[in-house]
Amino acid sequence: MGWGDLGAFGEPSKETPNLDQMASEGMLFLDFYTANPLCSPSRAALLTGRLPVRNGFYTTNGHARNAYTPQDIVGGIPDSELLLPELLKKAGYINKIIGKWHLGHRPQFHPLKHGFDEWFGSPNCHFGPFDNRALPNIPVYRDWEMIGRYYEDFKIDRKTGEANLTQIYLQEALDFISKQQASQQPFFLYWAIDATHAPVYASKHFLGTSQRGLYGDAVREIDDSVGKILKHLQKLGISENTFVFFTSDNGAALISAPKEGGSNGRFLCGKQTTFEGGMREPAIAWWPGHIPAGGVSRQLGNVMDLFTTSLSLAGLQPPSDRQIDGIDLLPAILQGKLIDRPIFYYRGNEMMAVRVGLYKAHYWTWSNSWEEYSKGVDFCPGQNVSGVTTHTQEEHTTLPLLFHLGRDPGEKYPLSFASDEYQRAMERISLVVQQHKATMVPGEPQLNVCDKAVMNWSPPGCEKLGKCLKPPKSDPKKCFWPH
Amino acid sequence: MGWGDLGAFGEPSKETPNLDQMASEGMLFLDFYTANPLCSPSRAALLTGRLPVRNGFYTTNGHARNAYTPQDIVGGIPDSELLLPELLKKAGYINKIIGKWHLGHRPQFHPLKHGFDEWFGSPNCHFGPFDNRALPNIPVYRDWEMIGRYYEDFKIDRKTGEANLTQIYLQEALDFISKQQASQQPFFLYWAIDATHAPVYASKHFLGTSQRGLYGDAVREIDDSVGKILKHLQKLGISENTFVFFTSDNGAALISAPKEGGSNGRFLCGKQTTFEGGMREPAIAWWPGHIPAGGVSRQLGNVMDLFTTSLSLAGLQPPSDRQIDGIDLLPAILQGKLIDRPIFYYRGNEMMAVRVGLYKAHYWTWSNSWEEYSKGVDFCPGQNVSGVTTHTQEEHTTLPLLFHLGRDPGEKYPLSFASDEYQRAMERISLVVQQHKATMVPGEPQLNVCDKAVMNWSPPGCEKLGKCLKPPKSDPKKCFWPH
Repeated sequence: MGWGDLGAFGEPSKETPNLDQMASEGMLFLDFYTANPLCSPSRAALLTGRLPVRNGFYTTNGHARNAYTPQDIVGGIPDSELLLPELLKKAGYINKIIGKWHLGHRPQFHPLKHGFDEWFGSPNCHFGPFDNRALPNIPVYRDWEMIGRYYEDFKIDRKTGEANLTQIYLQEALDFISKQQASQQPFFLYWAIDATHAPVYASKHFLGTSQRGLYGDAVREIDDSVGKILKHLQKLGISENTFVFFTSDNGAALISAPKEGGSNGRFLCGKQTTFEGGMREPAIAWWPGHIPAGGVSRQLGNVMDLFTTSLSLAGLQPPSDRQIDGIDLLPAILQGKLIDRPIFYYRGNEMMAVRVGLYKAHYWTWSNSWEEYSKGVDFCPGQNVSGVTTHTQEEHTTLPLLFHLGRDPGEKYPLSFASDEYQRAMERISLVVQQHKATMVPGEPQLNVCDKAVMNWSPPGCEKLGKCLKPPKSDPKKCFWPH
Repeated sequence: MGWGDLGAFGEPSKETPNLDQMASEGMLFLDFYTANPLCSPSRAALLTGRLPVRNGFYTTNGHARNAYTPQDIVGGIPDSELLLPELLKKAGYINKIIGKWHLGHRPQFHPLKHGFDEWFGSPNCHFGPFDNRALPNIPVYRDWEMIGRYYEDFKIDRKTGEANLTQIYLQEALDFISKQQASQQPFFLYWAIDATHAPVYASKHFLGTSQRGLYGDAVREIDDSVGKILKHLQKLGISENTFVFFTSDNGAALISAPKEGGSNGRFLCGKQTTFEGGMREPAIAWWPGHIPAGGVSRQLGNVMDLFTTSLSLAGLQPPSDRQIDGIDLLPAILQGKLIDRPIFYYRGNEMMAVRVGLYKAHYWTWSNSWEEYSKGVDFCPGQNVSGVTTHTQEEHTTLPLLFHLGRDPGEKYPLSFASDEYQRAMERISLVVQQHKATMVPGEPQLNVCDKAVMNWSPPGCEKLGKCLKPPKSDPKKCFWPH
């Protein structure tokens, strides 16, 4: 989902009444970011509070390449990383993940081995394969074991876009919340739905109800579900004791537009890129009785902050034996303070850009290669900005391209290198970057090696279902990451 | 001002708390349009309820050319046109215009000859000349007479952007409202401020207060002023008896970006074009106690509707002896009804496009000429959409370019001519266009002839001020309209 997909952020059809109401009852973040323009690294960052380049969710197979966890990925979340649910356990929390995990699907990466108590969902994305023949369909797990596979047992009609998965995920969420409220136990629910990821889907009740087509139907169903979750909390009388945060893991994938692609508002480009459209996210904090209704925050925020903020809410300290990139947002949320902190825009192993205050400096620009672009792969459709949306990796480390995101949120007008403003801003930014690079210790890259043998051929539980498949012989190779 | 300049419409800095509150207390229109992508024709349409091609505010000097009322224009609003204030007089209304008139500056076009009782403001735009030497500076009128000139008596500091004009216009508005309330007379106030038109200005108190630069300062001052006007109505106890509508006369001028150009959100291009960025407008209706708070309307609206709606509010019928294009929006505003009506996008003498429901068909596309474009005149910076933002006038009358504005508000993905959807939509649209063209009787074009002799050399009142200038010999010529 993209920044511009919510009515509260200016989507012209304004079809998200529940999220808009969540914002009017809570706090809207205008400058909230993900840690990476792609799913897996972004989610790893959210759960560890650390940049992907630290927690291992990146690749060194090529320079500045986006990488994730397809079925043949060998790596995943290292045991050495401390995940939010692992830490929350110390404060008595019961933790559940509903939806897409995406931090590795091999046994050692299982969410229940990393702090979650319950899981309903899939280890990988649902974008294929679709026939379970040459390659195994993605499994759906309940806790330790697979209970079926996408397209076989959990249908997504690729012609009509019909699937009731969001409804299943919603029911799982409501049931979990009810159970926890009944047992008086504090809980952490990571509700990681994926209906807006291509192939986009919605349940029958929502199909054809949006002005925006199938993608809009999916957004409307998510919006409706969020409304139901919030109402459930209120009905159970625990809304004033439950902190809820809504955000996304990367910008809308414009490559899937117009049928299955969302909106990043007026920001440049989308998912896969380190322009604002790829990494600025819709974000709403909700906590009635604590967060002032109708608040708007200009705090520069990041999904990694949800790690630190959640620990703070639970009365816990973040780990002190490692670098944590997330900050505690509670002063911003509860007291309206503004904390000075930079935002780093990484693509794989490269810091492409940094934001300090309202200035954003690009040290590298790249949308994708000419080769891909000429085949129709376009992350910035209809948005060519000369010298900015480049199809070769352009290095600007000596003279970064500088934008003022207040005057120019669309990153169309680089500041003149000769201007005083450029000089002043770059002095400040250079210090931040210097400090960042001086203390950066990259983790071991987890997204370098792929092997068809590790795919979901025979997940635990497959025997009972008669759904085990025979893996091929192991043949580990460098994964190919084209952009 | 553009659609995307308000927080309520997703401006990423969200700096319009008063307009946003106006929306939350009133009704936001998502699909509201101007009748022309340029100032004068748009304002003529607002005040007559008729398309510029009917009321004469267009040119035939070239095909599909934007035209307006610079100082050397010979034409203006014809006496045969009936303006809103003329009609409101019949219901006892006192009418005032504050700000830019732009419907002709020669004596016969004076606003007080066309129904207004009071005027404070200028007949033309403030964008020059600046030195009153070769050409006269634009005069500022109080009622019948000029009381000074821009840049001489009404300063705009072109270096700092400082000018207190919006404050003067605000005070005029507050005083007029107080006076009318005291005398118990119904009133129509046309508050036509122009601070967001280049050269953009703001008063000292607002300079440097926006994240968005000088343009943002101007928007903030307008926002603040609207808030003060609404509060004044409330303080006087007449808010429940006063209908207020906020909108703009064309999309933000992207040619002035980033320093002096606003935002059209994710819509394509800006002022001067018939893409959504040129003609979709921010729009808010406010009438406490009548309009349900927090309403959102998808009614296709147009500035011309303000003519018909205002008459309706005053218990008057629109003239029956001529074609009126504006519709009465009260059923949409008060009862949430949706009225089926098309939106026509004209550029000069050509119907460039039409919107019916969510479909928009372009019969002609043109941003501007190669000649202008190669000189840096760009109405669509960073937004080249191949085959859509063309630099030659492209005719599509046989097979119009069709967009679905719900799925594709940015007009980036024309529907396939071969699709069923295209066929179905075009059948409906063709009927609408056929009917429109069959009954179209263009008015006499007012914007064809220019003559330096008619400039504001010696406006009434100049003698008292010692500010009369000697006009050159009359030399009427065809005006040159480059785009």
